[in-house]
Amino acid sequence: MTKKISEKTIKDLGEFGLIKHLTQDVVIRQNSTRKGIGDDAAVIDHGNNETIVTTDLLLEGVHFDLTYVPLKHLGYKAVIVNLSDVFAMNAVPLQITVSIGVSSKISVAALDELYSGIKLACNMYDIDLVGGDTSASFNGLTISITALGMATPGSVVYRNGAKKNDLVCASGHLGGAYMGLLLLQREKKLFEQDPSQQPQLDDYQHLLERQLKPEARRDIITQLREIEVKPTSMIDISDGLSSDLLHICDASKLGCKLFANKIPVHPATDKLSTEMGMSPLVAALNGGEDYELLFTIAMEDFEKVQNMQQVTVIGHMTDNSEGTHMILDDDSAIPLVAQGWQAQEGL
Amino acid sequence: MTKKISEKTIKDLGEFGLIKHLTQDVVIRQNSTRKGIGDDAAVIDHGNNETIVTTDLLLEGVHFDLTYVPLKHLGYKAVIVNLSDVFAMNAVPLQITVSIGVSSKISVAALDELYSGIKLACNMYDIDLVGGDTSASFNGLTISITALGMATPGSVVYRNGAKKNDLVCASGHLGGAYMGLLLLQREKKLFEQDPSQQPQLDDYQHLLERQLKPEARRDIITQLREIEVKPTSMIDISDGLSSDLLHICDASKLGCKLFANKIPVHPATDKLSTEMGMSPLVAALNGGEDYELLFTIAMEDFEKVQNMQQVTVIGHMTDNSEGTHMILDDDSAIPLVAQGWQAQEGL
Repeated sequence: MTKKISEKTIKDLGEFGLIKHLTQDVVIRQNSTRKGIGDDAAVIDHGNNETIVTTDLLLEGVHFDLTYVPLKHLGYKAVIVNLSDVFAMNAVPLQITVSIGVSSKISVAALDELYSGIKLACNMYDIDLVGGDTSASFNGLTISITALGMATPGSVVYRNGAKKNDLVCASGHLGGAYMGLLLLQREKKLFEQDPSQQPQLDDYQHLLERQLKPEARRDIITQLREIEVKPTSMIDISDGLSSDLLHICDASKLGCKLFANKIPVHPATDKLSTEMGMSPLVAALNGGEDYELLFTIAMEDFEKVQNMQQVTVIGHMTDNSEGTHMILDDDSAIPLVAQGWQAQEGL
Repeated sequence: MTKKISEKTIKDLGEFGLIKHLTQDVVIRQNSTRKGIGDDAAVIDHGNNETIVTTDLLLEGVHFDLTYVPLKHLGYKAVIVNLSDVFAMNAVPLQITVSIGVSSKISVAALDELYSGIKLACNMYDIDLVGGDTSASFNGLTISITALGMATPGSVVYRNGAKKNDLVCASGHLGGAYMGLLLLQREKKLFEQDPSQQPQLDDYQHLLERQLKPEARRDIITQLREIEVKPTSMIDISDGLSSDLLHICDASKLGCKLFANKIPVHPATDKLSTEMGMSPLVAALNGGEDYELLFTIAMEDFEKVQNMQQVTVIGHMTDNSEGTHMILDDDSAIPLVAQGWQAQEGL
């Protein structure tokens, strides 16, 4: 027997199912709301320009573990994940608000560290910190950041603009952030078993940086503008290549073919995944947190994009009826699977 | 010996001290940032109009207790507190984003309740819900809401515009929300001692509504516009009359005289505070959460404002050197004291 929706647990629905369920009857009343729920960010019409709004909530124990995430890096990353959403709309982030919930166990010096990371990200990306909320908390650290950006009318790129035969492109390397997380978790476990053991992290500096200090791809947005290529659709890779490409397919009502051997993987990701007995593709497809840009371009823009050093063409869009698949070296096709978060068991 | 700032605890600094400490070196880089940290909301310049941004973070166990706050009311109130900040800038809220962190203990039906309150508030105030973030959580419920509003250039009212001799005005009644909270806490305690006892809440419907289902004063903003009065400064009363008037004094670099016998208190607040052996003024001054508007007007606007049914003149601004005082019936003056939150002890 199928459960009624009201009897379902958050676990039954999963992240994307829950969001869909809670927001399915949301009504848009204001003329100025150009785009509501369902993209990397909302878009508000302000006449001469459009305002981009996105927000992220980070919870201790879920999104970060303070035993191995330095607070300065946490602050930096918390800003970056929001800026990445604004860039993914082909817009420029300009302002953020930062709300934090802090328990009395956290020292002022620790909060200074957190804010030094937040301020560093603002400095690196020319962002103004314009407001927020500071609150006492019983349970650890909560960080909520909202970013505002600006775009000229007509320049915003949504998830739903991909066309059949468009090329699928990804920036940078994928899977590194997830391997960095596995590495930190492994070293934490070893340290707990034998505190005299120092963590062996030197070989994997790249992976640690991908996990602890990711960057948002402002450079890609700037380069695309310079070579006069406007992607037909775009999203940032926060949930993993698989989920995020499926978001574009869903929104654009198309299928896709993704070529496994084209997915850009850094040598360090290859090395550690081999060491751990897993495929680097699993990290790239399902790991998430890479904050690279995934976008589609019209075939005629291929020549221009080909010269971008940090962009790889990894597949193309197909008719909806062809489904969403990854093609392996032996030409076999395996279906792409979405992976959002799963509800946590209470501690 | 005085502690160095880095050795200080959050408790040493208190809410306002902590905010000041963390944000003192924040730099504004963007021309479009009209107002950053330090008012009810930030103001972004968009040429033909200004965008207002404000955000609030609500944590279970700190801002709400699910044993006596119905989830629908919680959702409603979470929206209202943000709209109130936008109205306090003399602007019109148009969009919100809602982020929630939920543990697996919370059912989908419970989240539906929460969202029904959020959607009801959107419906009542013509607000679009345009985005957010949904996250798994280990510890209870976290709600972070950001509101965006719009104002025509020149119409925004800041905290820092009060002039000497301006009249201090408050909308509605003060202290009711706090008495509602005390009532709920008392009845919860009695119920825990003897579960067969039903809560006695009928006489105090007004106070419960003030605590559980506050409204944002859109009507006051509209009326002021109709009678062509632009306040010289404005803030919403979220921390308590005392703290919020001090915010205006600080920002405007002025003192004030507040008259105790002018402070508008509802009969139900009078009744319950007498019953509990406390002064209703304590609730009005320090209770907070009334979400009324506190504003100053030029003396020449007095005639116009006098006819507003829901507005009371409660004092006037003085020279900075005269300090910030409340005047009692016997003409004695007692200094106003700011009360933000205090850091919570870890559980």
